[in-house]
Amino acid sequence: MSKEITSRAADYAQWYNDLVIKGGLADYSAVRGCMVIKPYGFALWENMRDALDKMFKDTGHVNAYFPLFIPKSFLSKEAAHIEGFAKECAVVTHYRLKNDPDGGGLIVDPEAKLEEELIVRPTSETIIWNTYKDWIQSYRDLPLLVNQWANVVRWEMRTRLFLRTAEFLWQEGHTAHATSEEAVAETRQMLDVYATFAEEFMAMPVIKGVKTISERFAGAEDTYCIEALMQDGKALQAGTSHFLGQNFAKAFEVKFLTKENKQEYVWATSWGVSTRLIGALVMAHSDDQGLVMPPRIAPQQVVIVPIFKGDEQKQIIGEKAAQIMKELTAMGIRVKYDDNENARPGWKFAEYEMKGIPVRIALGARDLENNVVEIARRDTKEKQTVSLDGLPEVIRQLLDEIQLNLYNKAKTYRDAHITMVDDWDRFVELLDEKGGFLSAHWDGTAETEETIKEKTKATIRCIPLDNKKEAGKCILTGQPSEQRVLFARAY
Amino acid sequence: MSKEITSRAADYAQWYNDLVIKGGLADYSAVRGCMVIKPYGFALWENMRDALDKMFKDTGHVNAYFPLFIPKSFLSKEAAHIEGFAKECAVVTHYRLKNDPDGGGLIVDPEAKLEEELIVRPTSETIIWNTYKDWIQSYRDLPLLVNQWANVVRWEMRTRLFLRTAEFLWQEGHTAHATSEEAVAETRQMLDVYATFAEEFMAMPVIKGVKTISERFAGAEDTYCIEALMQDGKALQAGTSHFLGQNFAKAFEVKFLTKENKQEYVWATSWGVSTRLIGALVMAHSDDQGLVMPPRIAPQQVVIVPIFKGDEQKQIIGEKAAQIMKELTAMGIRVKYDDNENARPGWKFAEYEMKGIPVRIALGARDLENNVVEIARRDTKEKQTVSLDGLPEVIRQLLDEIQLNLYNKAKTYRDAHITMVDDWDRFVELLDEKGGFLSAHWDGTAETEETIKEKTKATIRCIPLDNKKEAGKCILTGQPSEQRVLFARAY
Repeated sequence: MSKEITSRAADYAQWYNDLVIKGGLADYSAVRGCMVIKPYGFALWENMRDALDKMFKDTGHVNAYFPLFIPKSFLSKEAAHIEGFAKECAVVTHYRLKNDPDGGGLIVDPEAKLEEELIVRPTSETIIWNTYKDWIQSYRDLPLLVNQWANVVRWEMRTRLFLRTAEFLWQEGHTAHATSEEAVAETRQMLDVYATFAEEFMAMPVIKGVKTISERFAGAEDTYCIEALMQDGKALQAGTSHFLGQNFAKAFEVKFLTKENKQEYVWATSWGVSTRLIGALVMAHSDDQGLVMPPRIAPQQVVIVPIFKGDEQKQIIGEKAAQIMKELTAMGIRVKYDDNENARPGWKFAEYEMKGIPVRIALGARDLENNVVEIARRDTKEKQTVSLDGLPEVIRQLLDEIQLNLYNKAKTYRDAHITMVDDWDRFVELLDEKGGFLSAHWDGTAETEETIKEKTKATIRCIPLDNKKEAGKCILTGQPSEQRVLFARAY
Repeated sequence: MSKEITSRAADYAQWYNDLVIKGGLADYSAVRGCMVIKPYGFALWENMRDALDKMFKDTGHVNAYFPLFIPKSFLSKEAAHIEGFAKECAVVTHYRLKNDPDGGGLIVDPEAKLEEELIVRPTSETIIWNTYKDWIQSYRDLPLLVNQWANVVRWEMRTRLFLRTAEFLWQEGHTAHATSEEAVAETRQMLDVYATFAEEFMAMPVIKGVKTISERFAGAEDTYCIEALMQDGKALQAGTSHFLGQNFAKAFEVKFLTKENKQEYVWATSWGVSTRLIGALVMAHSDDQGLVMPPRIAPQQVVIVPIFKGDEQKQIIGEKAAQIMKELTAMGIRVKYDDNENARPGWKFAEYEMKGIPVRIALGARDLENNVVEIARRDTKEKQTVSLDGLPEVIRQLLDEIQLNLYNKAKTYRDAHITMVDDWDRFVELLDEKGGFLSAHWDGTAETEETIKEKTKATIRCIPLDNKKEAGKCILTGQPSEQRVLFARAY
C-alpha cells in the first residue's frame, strides 16, 4: 500500500483525506455517510474524551444515558428545534424483517409497522427534557448537571470524514437551573472548558464568541462557540454551548417549586463537542509528511525504533529499550517499541512520521556503545544525539516543548490571519487571496448576513466575547454598526 | 417520594424493579423498551467498563468504532445469523420528515425513502467483517484484536430494566486469526477475562461452560458462557464468547495470504458483555433494605454523614470530614460527604443503605471529642466505633473484607444450589421447590432439550468446562449419556 500523501499546495482537501485514511484514523464504510473510526483514531478520541470527561466532572457534572430513539411527536414540540432537524434524520418505521413469501429475499414486514415513527437522535434535548419532567419538582432538585457520551445521526447530504458524517460520536451536556443567570453562567463556564481543552490539550488556539441569530442552535436563545482556524484559511466551529432559556421547559412542561413556593419553568443549557474535533486537530497541525499529534493527547507520545544487525545486537538493544520503556512509562509517558522485523527502520521512520508520533528514538548498536541515542521531534523534524543518562527527563521536557511549539505556531498563523477590513472589494479580495478571519463592521441584519454569504460564501463566525464597541459602517451596506464581527469561510 | 421496597419474599420481580428505580440506577423512558440509565447507574457502568477495558487492553486489544447502521443485505449473508436477528430489529426506511401538506403535522417524507433499508445494529459481526475485508490481506495483518463499546438494539417484546431492553450498552470484541487453534484460544481467553471480572470485581461467582447447539449464538461454531445464580434460584447468562469458525469470513470473502503463500479464509471470534451485568449485580447481592454494591465497582465506596446541632458543631465536624476525605481520596478510595441540611441523618442513613454504599461513617460532635467515629458496613449492617487514628487504613481493610464477604456469601449460596439429580420427578420438584442449577444427564439431542424446556421452563445453561466424563442415563429419556450438564430456569 502506497503511503504517499498529496501536498497541501496541490490539493488541500485530498491532503486531508490522505492523512485521515493513510494515517490510520478512519475509513469510509459501506453505509452512506458513516465512517469507521480505526484503532489509532479511536485511541486519539479516547484521550480527548477522558480529558474532557475529567473537566466535566471537576465542574460538578455527572454522566447518564438516554434512549437512542426519539418519538416523532417529541421533535415537534419545540418549533425552532424541529425546523432545524426534521430535514435530515434517520426514521425507524418498522421493527421486524421477514422472508418475502414471493421469494424476494429479506423484506420489511409490513405488519411490523410502528404506531409512531422513531427518530434516531440528532441531539437529545427533547427526550431528556421529557425525562427531566419526572426528575425535577422543587428548587432542591436543581441544578441538574448531566452529560451524555453518545452517537448521534444527522442525514447530511455531503459528508467528509470526521468533519461532517451522518453518524458521529459526541458528548452533549444538558443542565437545568432555577434562574436565568445561573443558566447563562453555566453556558459560559462550559464554553471556557471547551476553550481550555482546545488550547491546552489540542494546542489549538480558539476565539470565544457568540453566534448571530441566524447561526444559533435550533431552539436556543443564545449560542456561544469556539472558532478555530485551519491551515487553508478556513474557520472551523469546534464546540458550542447554548443558553436555551425556558424553551424546552415550556415545550415539555417542566416546572419547579421555588423557595418562595411558586411554580416556575426551569432554565436550560446544552453544550457539545464531537469527533469533528479530530478533523480540526488534523488540519490545525499536520504537514505534507503526515499527521502531527500534540503530545498531551497523542495515542503514543514516543516510539523507539531499534537499528540492529543479527540476533546479538537485537538482544542488547532490546534490553536497553525495555529499560527506557520502563522509565518513560513510570513517568506516565505513552511509549511504543517497534522491533517488527518485517519492516526496515527507514520504513518505520516514515510510518511514524505519517502517524505524527511526537518523539522518535532511534536505538543503534554503535550509539549504545557511546551511551547515546538519536531523538527526532515530529513537529520541527530536528534530530539530536543525547546521552542515555537522564534521557527520560529530556524526553519529558521535549514533549512539553513540542506541545507549546504547536500551540505557538498555530497561534502565530491564526493571529496573522485576522485582518481588519473596511472596504467591500478588499473584503472579497482577502477572502480569496488570504483567507482567515476578516474583522469587519456589519449592520446587524439577517438580510445583510445572508447577502454576504451568497456573494462570498463567508459567514459570520462569531461576535467575539472580548469585542470592543466601535462605531463604524457595515462592510456591505454602509449602514451604521456598533462593533466589528468575525467573518470567514468555514467548514 | 416513598422509598419503601417490596421484600424479596413478597414479590421478587417487584423487589428488583424497586431497587433499580428507587436506588437511582435506571428509569423507564417514553420509548417502548428503552431505559434511561440514571447518573448513579451510569457511574456504576463506568467503573465496570473501565475495569473491563483495562483487561481487554492488557490482553492486547484495541478499541475502534463501526457504524450504527447495517445494510439489510449484510444481515442476509450469514444464514444462521439472519435467522437469529431479523425478527427483532429496528429498521430505518426513510431519511427525512416533512410537514404534511394536508395539515396532519410532521410526517415521514415519502420521497425520502432509502434504496436499501438500514438495520440498527443488533450486533456488529456483518458490518465489521465487511470492513475486515479491506484490512486483512496477509498473515502479517493477523491477529486483528478489536473491541467496540457501543449501543445496540434488539426489538424485544417483553422488556425488563437492564435484564432485557430494546436498546442496551455493551462491548463487542471481534477478532481475526490465521488459525482455528488461535481463534479458539482467544475465545477461551476472553471467557476467562469475563469470569475474572465477574468474580473479582462484581464479587459474583460464575460457572464457565459451553452452550449446547440450540443455545449457540446465531452464526457461531461454539458459544462459551459464564453463568451466574441469582437469589431467587434462577440462572443468568452474564457473558458470552463465540468461536465463529470461518463463517463470517466466508460470508464476506475475507481471505489472507498465508506464510506458505496460499489464500485461506480467516478465523473469527466475537465476545460481549452488556449493561445486563448491572441487573445481575443487583440480584446477586442486594437485600430487602436496598442495593448492596461490591466496593471495587461501587460509585461511592464510603459516605460520611455529619451529625450536628448548630453552626459551630457543623464547622468543627466539616473540618474533620475534609481531613478524612483527603486521606481516603489519597488512598484511591471514592468518598462522598453529605452535609445537606435539608435531610436528617436518619433519612440519609436509609438513603445510602438503599443505594448500597459499602461503608458509612457517622461523624458526631461527641464522638469527635472522644476521637472516635461510628462506621457501619452495608453488607452485614454491623456497626463499630473506631478511633480516628488510623481510620483510613481501617476503612481500606474493611472495603477488602466486604468485597470478599460478598463473594463468599454468593458462592456459598450458589454452591448450595447445584444439585445432582438422576430422577425426573425429583428434577421437576427441585426446580419448583429449590431452584438453582440441576446437574443431570442428558442424551445430547436437541429434541430432549426442547421437551425439557417445554415441560419445565428449564434450559441447559451450559456444559461446564471442568466437567467430568461420567456414564449415565438421560434424566428424561433414559438414553445413554456421557456427562452431566447444568439445567436451570433462567433470566
